[in-house]
Amino acid sequence: MAKVTIIGAGAMGSALVVPLLENGHQVRMWGTELDEEIIAAVKSGLPHPKHKKCLPAAVEAFYAPDLSAAIHGAELIIMAVTSDAMEAVFSRVVPYLQKGMVVGTVTKGFAYDEHGKIVILPELMRNLLPAALQSTIQIVAVGGPCKATELLWKAPTAVTYASQSIDAARYMKDVLKTRTYCVEATTDIVGTEVCAAMKNAYAVGLGMAEGFSQKDGLTHNNTKSALFTYAVREMGYLSLALGGTLEPVYGLPGAGDLEVTGEAGRNRILGEVIGKGLSAKQAIAKMEQEQITVEGYPAIRFGYNLVKQLEESGKASLQQFTLLSGLYAILYENEDAFSTLCEVMNQVIEV
Amino acid sequence: MAKVTIIGAGAMGSALVVPLLENGHQVRMWGTELDEEIIAAVKSGLPHPKHKKCLPAAVEAFYAPDLSAAIHGAELIIMAVTSDAMEAVFSRVVPYLQKGMVVGTVTKGFAYDEHGKIVILPELMRNLLPAALQSTIQIVAVGGPCKATELLWKAPTAVTYASQSIDAARYMKDVLKTRTYCVEATTDIVGTEVCAAMKNAYAVGLGMAEGFSQKDGLTHNNTKSALFTYAVREMGYLSLALGGTLEPVYGLPGAGDLEVTGEAGRNRILGEVIGKGLSAKQAIAKMEQEQITVEGYPAIRFGYNLVKQLEESGKASLQQFTLLSGLYAILYENEDAFSTLCEVMNQVIEV
Repeated sequence: MAKVTIIGAGAMGSALVVPLLENGHQVRMWGTELDEEIIAAVKSGLPHPKHKKCLPAAVEAFYAPDLSAAIHGAELIIMAVTSDAMEAVFSRVVPYLQKGMVVGTVTKGFAYDEHGKIVILPELMRNLLPAALQSTIQIVAVGGPCKATELLWKAPTAVTYASQSIDAARYMKDVLKTRTYCVEATTDIVGTEVCAAMKNAYAVGLGMAEGFSQKDGLTHNNTKSALFTYAVREMGYLSLALGGTLEPVYGLPGAGDLEVTGEAGRNRILGEVIGKGLSAKQAIAKMEQEQITVEGYPAIRFGYNLVKQLEESGKASLQQFTLLSGLYAILYENEDAFSTLCEVMNQVIEV
Repeated sequence: MAKVTIIGAGAMGSALVVPLLENGHQVRMWGTELDEEIIAAVKSGLPHPKHKKCLPAAVEAFYAPDLSAAIHGAELIIMAVTSDAMEAVFSRVVPYLQKGMVVGTVTKGFAYDEHGKIVILPELMRNLLPAALQSTIQIVAVGGPCKATELLWKAPTAVTYASQSIDAARYMKDVLKTRTYCVEATTDIVGTEVCAAMKNAYAVGLGMAEGFSQKDGLTHNNTKSALFTYAVREMGYLSLALGGTLEPVYGLPGAGDLEVTGEAGRNRILGEVIGKGLSAKQAIAKMEQEQITVEGYPAIRFGYNLVKQLEESGKASLQQFTLLSGLYAILYENEDAFSTLCEVMNQVIEV
């Protein structure tokens, strides 16, 4: 039995209690100030406000001021906050970390480091650790197609745990894997995280093909599948440029997670409304008005700027990223979606 | 302007006239005895019985007895018949082939050669050519996500043309490519055809995940995406074992075509009804009763037996093909779909 603390009480954080409890672990879940309503519900045995399911009574829930108690004695910490909150929240967690703890993260995305360089989140986390802990705390990133609600009802799921330390990845795998929650361990944390962050960006593009179908009443599956292929290819270029491999790109974190992300979710919906004819400006204004966070929108800019940074150091060329450049033009320069993506498909073939 | 003859008047054959006419070529379409109704409709300017669209008047349609006239003078022949009819129909075409003609094929699948060995269709075709023509007739196989109806309404589409002769692939590309029908040329005809044949088999598995969702009212996107990933991986093993590469597997013919095939179509529907609870026996009986051909059903057995043949010669191991073996057990040994696929996902992870 391990003591595990989940940091963040949203859909994914609370869904992870299912495999953890199935394996007989002691599970604690801490919520930020924004999670107060959730923590209150969990403490009272009421349904979780996000996914409307009651969590098992065995879960110990903690309010924001009780972070120290929530972490005390834990062997495994799992970060499950939104990507834009990662830096702030992990900074609060760090003072309570002890030598030898494993820190998992299901939070995905990019961030700027203190020099303005775009980094993957595990790198940001590592930079926040005090020097004394940097070599003893291992970070494990989670990739692969995993919708939180499906974890709750135990739909068979397979994910990748990636860490520079294969032992840490395997430790976390042993703690969480069940018959319906299958886990692969890998050392390619860079490739895994590149996919985890970029699949949201590319899912916006796949959504556009769905939007074209709805606009003219004619399916555009050919378009969607071609874009899917090019998205995977470009995630491969990016992984290689950053020192990762192609293994996670063609595996669960890349092709697998893009498949599920392109099927449903907010990223796809953003693309869909643009494909249907709303301008990107209008779509984003609508989104902001409704206070909906679509991770793919900033991910397109992060990805595009990251490639430009890599280009400056000779590690990549924007020419390889025809689809990403097209998505950037559509989302940030208000170019027409249909003609831009049609042009992208022609250009890719000619490269 | 090229003279092009399409052999087969079904949905895909007749859809190819769209890019061909857009490029100003002379297009002839020949139908087998089973296509009489279609040819009559096309000749009378009536809608094509399969997709209910009228073909442009410029298409010259030929009945079965007029094969010689249909082929006479053509520079490019495109085979577009069902895979089980390929041997019989191509045998009728061969006597009219002339030195230097290029033969494209959109027909996909496996066949047995005269020694009982399972081969890809271009190999079957090559074996049917007289010795004198074997070195001068080039065969070009088509892979990638391309639903025929979407070609008709010019949804942006990207496909791969594969030939041992890159010149032949590029020639056919130049003849057919348009702004919305994008074509990549490659020499990996083996990998391209392995994907073209096997994607139907694996799409049946993806359909099962959809069926699970419908059965219990809870989505199983995680399951579908994991199976998608494993399907692509296994197509890669098969391509390598047969002397192909991974390039088409991770490109349009593999990941791309599986994406579109898993979204819709008969293969997916067969899987869906099994996932919903019908036994494979019942599902197949129903299918046969309704005279519906589902290519994925024989493809699962072809693929499974092919791996066994490769295993005998030490080129592959059935252990690598966990998902294919699972699909074989479900479809041909009446094993339960849910527990078999759940077991598959666990086994894959442990390999």
